[in-house]
Amino acid sequence: MNILKEIEDSFIKPPKNELLMRVSNFKKLLESKNIDYALIFYNVNLFYFTNSIQRGCLLITDDDAKPYYFVQKHIDRAKLETYSDLIEVIEIKKISEVFSYLKELGLMDKKRVGLELGDISASFFINLKKSLKDQEIVDITYDILRLRSIKSEFELSQMREASKMSDKIFSIVPSFLKEGMTELELAGCIQAESRKLGNQEIIRMRGFNNELTNPHVLSGISGAIPSAGDVPLSGYGPSSAIAQGASLKKIKREEPIIVDYAGSQNGYINDETRVFVIGKLPKELERAYWISREIIEFVETHVKEGDNGKDVYKEILKIVEKYDLLDHFMGYKKGRVRFVAHGIGLVLNEFPIIADSRDEELKENMVFSIEPKFVFPQKGAVGIEVDFIVKKDRLERLSSFPLDIVSV
Amino acid sequence: MNILKEIEDSFIKPPKNELLMRVSNFKKLLESKNIDYALIFYNVNLFYFTNSIQRGCLLITDDDAKPYYFVQKHIDRAKLETYSDLIEVIEIKKISEVFSYLKELGLMDKKRVGLELGDISASFFINLKKSLKDQEIVDITYDILRLRSIKSEFELSQMREASKMSDKIFSIVPSFLKEGMTELELAGCIQAESRKLGNQEIIRMRGFNNELTNPHVLSGISGAIPSAGDVPLSGYGPSSAIAQGASLKKIKREEPIIVDYAGSQNGYINDETRVFVIGKLPKELERAYWISREIIEFVETHVKEGDNGKDVYKEILKIVEKYDLLDHFMGYKKGRVRFVAHGIGLVLNEFPIIADSRDEELKENMVFSIEPKFVFPQKGAVGIEVDFIVKKDRLERLSSFPLDIVSV
Repeated sequence: MNILKEIEDSFIKPPKNELLMRVSNFKKLLESKNIDYALIFYNVNLFYFTNSIQRGCLLITDDDAKPYYFVQKHIDRAKLETYSDLIEVIEIKKISEVFSYLKELGLMDKKRVGLELGDISASFFINLKKSLKDQEIVDITYDILRLRSIKSEFELSQMREASKMSDKIFSIVPSFLKEGMTELELAGCIQAESRKLGNQEIIRMRGFNNELTNPHVLSGISGAIPSAGDVPLSGYGPSSAIAQGASLKKIKREEPIIVDYAGSQNGYINDETRVFVIGKLPKELERAYWISREIIEFVETHVKEGDNGKDVYKEILKIVEKYDLLDHFMGYKKGRVRFVAHGIGLVLNEFPIIADSRDEELKENMVFSIEPKFVFPQKGAVGIEVDFIVKKDRLERLSSFPLDIVSV
Repeated sequence: MNILKEIEDSFIKPPKNELLMRVSNFKKLLESKNIDYALIFYNVNLFYFTNSIQRGCLLITDDDAKPYYFVQKHIDRAKLETYSDLIEVIEIKKISEVFSYLKELGLMDKKRVGLELGDISASFFINLKKSLKDQEIVDITYDILRLRSIKSEFELSQMREASKMSDKIFSIVPSFLKEGMTELELAGCIQAESRKLGNQEIIRMRGFNNELTNPHVLSGISGAIPSAGDVPLSGYGPSSAIAQGASLKKIKREEPIIVDYAGSQNGYINDETRVFVIGKLPKELERAYWISREIIEFVETHVKEGDNGKDVYKEILKIVEKYDLLDHFMGYKKGRVRFVAHGIGLVLNEFPIIADSRDEELKENMVFSIEPKFVFPQKGAVGIEVDFIVKKDRLERLSSFPLDIVSV
């Protein structure tokens, strides 16, 4: 495959050591769980270990052997994208050929096999299970997510670049924002600007039925319209078929305009939210906005490595309760979700999750997006979303755009 | 939930009879396969049967009972979106509550249960299987796809509206197209215009690891860059992490610029492709373009209800072979895909598929998107994609934008 020079130069390849380290950490994980080998199919995980998301599967064993990247389509691209000296890239016509290789490698006899059961489909699993015969299958979905939750310096550098994109977008939203335009129209202006900046068109969220829009633009009452997603703010969307995100509602003066936006670099994303308003927000919403800000400031000055997400969540709820806004926090009543922050990286819903029910220790170089948001029926939503890197004795902000309400 | 009047008016609800008919056709299908009941989780199928994609599941039995729509989030929206007199909408806190209802309804004893095994995840399936105890599980993924492949008049009217959107977009591409702009920049201009027209931000494709960009903009050599997807043209994409679609490559004079675009209405989409060029195409590519056009004309004048997709595919290959372009058809050599048309509707990859290996009879009111495309290494791709409705004695075109190369 002959690649244009300008494209080859713009594609970023992680350092070779980076991929070596990821694979070696995964091998340690396999060993610690007595898993003999794993077959990886989910494109995000393929990318994490190989820097390539071509169609096929990756075999990683618990011993010193190189990973095998079996590729159906397209082999030339896979070879170009990964490091062929670290990873054996092998062309296959059908997935079933993988089992012949497994047999040849002595990996078909009473082994424990790791599979991404949270990602592959049921029917694919049923077929795999037949081919793997009497081998024991172990779910590795969450193990890989945990591995991915701690970012390397290379990954943090990608996410810092992604953050520059959201900073830039927030800074130019006021130049588009006009009374009477639809939410979708504002979303379109932001999308046009995003493409100029090179933002990827696909922002990933893992999990069945999970979909998203980028940007997520909600104005006034839209911010208070609930829907299916495990998110604090949903919006009308353009129809019942999409049921989230920007709609044909026209933007008015003196209502909160939520812009939730993910920048990207090389697959890595950030995820921040700011509130815009034409004129001034109603008092009740402005007050809630300042409570969001108080929460962000509390987190920024108190949270660090070693803290438990559950405790952080409890402390945040205390602030919300102090202002008597529990029914409005992260959705309204039945629409409330029980987390306040989620990890980011290659997808929008990684670990850690800072939530009611999750006993999760924050570790150095985890990155999370914290989004205290308040919903007021008929009026809309306000809140802030900010990305933080967990450091030994503090948090480090990923982006630099100010946290104030942007009044136009 | 109090909905804004302007939004309520813009949301389209299918006629009550339409949903009744879909459910009743599905009940017949269950009966014919001796399935006692089905549990439906995939949001596209939920929408098809209820006009709502809230989180939960839909129970449809093979007898006269109303469907039960169990909703976790958000109940108010589900009630508003569906017809509560046709479908029992029941609030649940956890999916596990569904099994208590099944027990109460006498549906837990040695029944045959239909599940969407091609859509739900392996781990979700494993848990469901435990809860369903010794009941027999049958895959209904493809049965529902077959049901959905034949469109009602209401569905066709939605798709005709979606087509007007792509007609409009193709007509204004020349006003954006400038030498030296990046593919992503052109994609952004199209996205901004799309949002003004109200096009939905999420265009769905079913299946594990399947992702897409809308529009899919590829210029010159990009059209010849293969990737993982089961599509004829992939493109560089913005990085190895996305690996498809528009990239940072700059658009030049006298190279083919592919714009593959889906309009939408109420979840229904269309899918067409046109070739644009600044100046004039090289002779070799122009010739291939006219062969695409010959194929479209052959199909439009010869294909009708009752034809087999396999035979149609063979006839098309004969045209390609006549011009000695087999290695270039639908991808280059190893990058070739073995279909030439796919169904469209609520997702981009529905039935029917017109392909080498598929014995598939075309039925009245199926809608397919046929896309004869040719790939030339280092030079790019050309081709046309047009949507057709299958009628008794002919095909009917869904859109009306001319098939010519658009020269700017």
